[in-house]
Amino acid sequence: MAIPYPHFVGSEKSAMETGILVPSSSSPASLSPVILTQDELKKIAAYKAVEYVESGMVLGLGTGSTAKHAVDRIGELLRQGKLHNIVGIPTSTKTHEQALSLGIPLTDLDAHPVVDLAIDGADEVDPFLNLVKGRGGSLLREKMVESSCRKFVVIVDESKLVKHLGGSGLAMPVEIVPFCWKFTAQRLQALFKDSGCVAKLRTCGENGEPSVTDNRNYVVDLYFSKDIGDLKAASDEILRLAGVVEHGMFLDMATTVIVAGELGVTVKNKL
Amino acid sequence: MAIPYPHFVGSEKSAMETGILVPSSSSPASLSPVILTQDELKKIAAYKAVEYVESGMVLGLGTGSTAKHAVDRIGELLRQGKLHNIVGIPTSTKTHEQALSLGIPLTDLDAHPVVDLAIDGADEVDPFLNLVKGRGGSLLREKMVESSCRKFVVIVDESKLVKHLGGSGLAMPVEIVPFCWKFTAQRLQALFKDSGCVAKLRTCGENGEPSVTDNRNYVVDLYFSKDIGDLKAASDEILRLAGVVEHGMFLDMATTVIVAGELGVTVKNKL
Repeated sequence: MAIPYPHFVGSEKSAMETGILVPSSSSPASLSPVILTQDELKKIAAYKAVEYVESGMVLGLGTGSTAKHAVDRIGELLRQGKLHNIVGIPTSTKTHEQALSLGIPLTDLDAHPVVDLAIDGADEVDPFLNLVKGRGGSLLREKMVESSCRKFVVIVDESKLVKHLGGSGLAMPVEIVPFCWKFTAQRLQALFKDSGCVAKLRTCGENGEPSVTDNRNYVVDLYFSKDIGDLKAASDEILRLAGVVEHGMFLDMATTVIVAGELGVTVKNKL
Repeated sequence: MAIPYPHFVGSEKSAMETGILVPSSSSPASLSPVILTQDELKKIAAYKAVEYVESGMVLGLGTGSTAKHAVDRIGELLRQGKLHNIVGIPTSTKTHEQALSLGIPLTDLDAHPVVDLAIDGADEVDPFLNLVKGRGGSLLREKMVESSCRKFVVIVDESKLVKHLGGSGLAMPVEIVPFCWKFTAQRLQALFKDSGCVAKLRTCGENGEPSVTDNRNYVVDLYFSKDIGDLKAASDEILRLAGVVEHGMFLDMATTVIVAGELGVTVKNKL
């Protein structure tokens, strides 16, 4: 059951208390629904997730447009003295830079192998809280940090909810070694031929150069036209291919998913 | 049943026909056994394996002190005109250089995704022809090539035979990403704590710098004091750790193992 946003009924004060940006067009109207942008929904979910953060925690800091809001908010609460004694483990070089600029003290998994709480976005969430992640390109570090968490809170806008992983028709990324990448891409595609899989090397820039991860690997994006079925079996089959480093399915890892939609925030906890 | 070496009974001609180097100390003696060095045994196994090579084949060229003899022998047969129309896929930058220097035409898996025959050494061979490989540091490329083979002939001296993988007490290597390698090493050690596992980063040089693979990753060597049990389950558990790229267990891959021992050559075929 979604909890409606306070500012939907024109309560500017409540909106400010929750730290939620209300589009200016909404201010005069009372009792009329407001069209929120996707970025505003992301921010709402992110701020809600940061309510789980307590002083003294080791925090996994996610990567991507949604997680960025959470990291900003943690920095803000630290500055305001509302949180203290936090250490963060960034899941990408990009988040590392963001956290540094916000003055969040940083550590790594070598020094802190147990993480109290990680907050991160996702590209897809299925009804069992399995995720696709990594369209932003840092799935490996995210998986290392988030597989070591006591709590893993995922923040998404409602467009990320799918009936089954791959169901959005968007990419399911696989990080592979550059050596003979075409061969590995062909094997990945062949593995899921019954699901109508198409494998594409992720490229960047005008010249179509391969996109390179933080770990100097390549990414192959898999597109499915049908449900891939048993996810754990699919995961093992992908990982068994020599040349594959990691894939973007995060199975049985999320403990909570916070979904921000037009009608309010829904919090789903793992059963 | 081992086939005794012809030169054990002083037949210089037979020895030369098989291309086997006979230690000079053995020449005068007839009917007396010869002590062969480990390198001579490796060479005997390698030359025997090259008998499987036919003109027109796509060949996987292995890496390491035993495979080196096979690659040398293939180069020799090409030069002599006894083989032609061969293309080789090297399993390491080192083998690439060796093959180039011998004039063996080269290709890669992207151009030739199906390999007719691969010949390579191994660090351990169990009774079911499962292998440990990669102490030489190129397990990932080896596994990519050798998992795409119609035939995979493994060449070892008899010191490599073990009752169970890990049984030699020597390293079972795991290639991992450098990012937070200590964390990954700890998780690997914890995974096999019931087998008395000790995980050590592979280093090189005087300063103990991490040894870096062809794919710019690190290697963690696992040492076991007890049998690790179900190998396929162990393989999947290792691969499921984010941070692991590949491991050195080659399960159900070898089609033939050629073992050179003091008493002769044994050829074991997969049932």
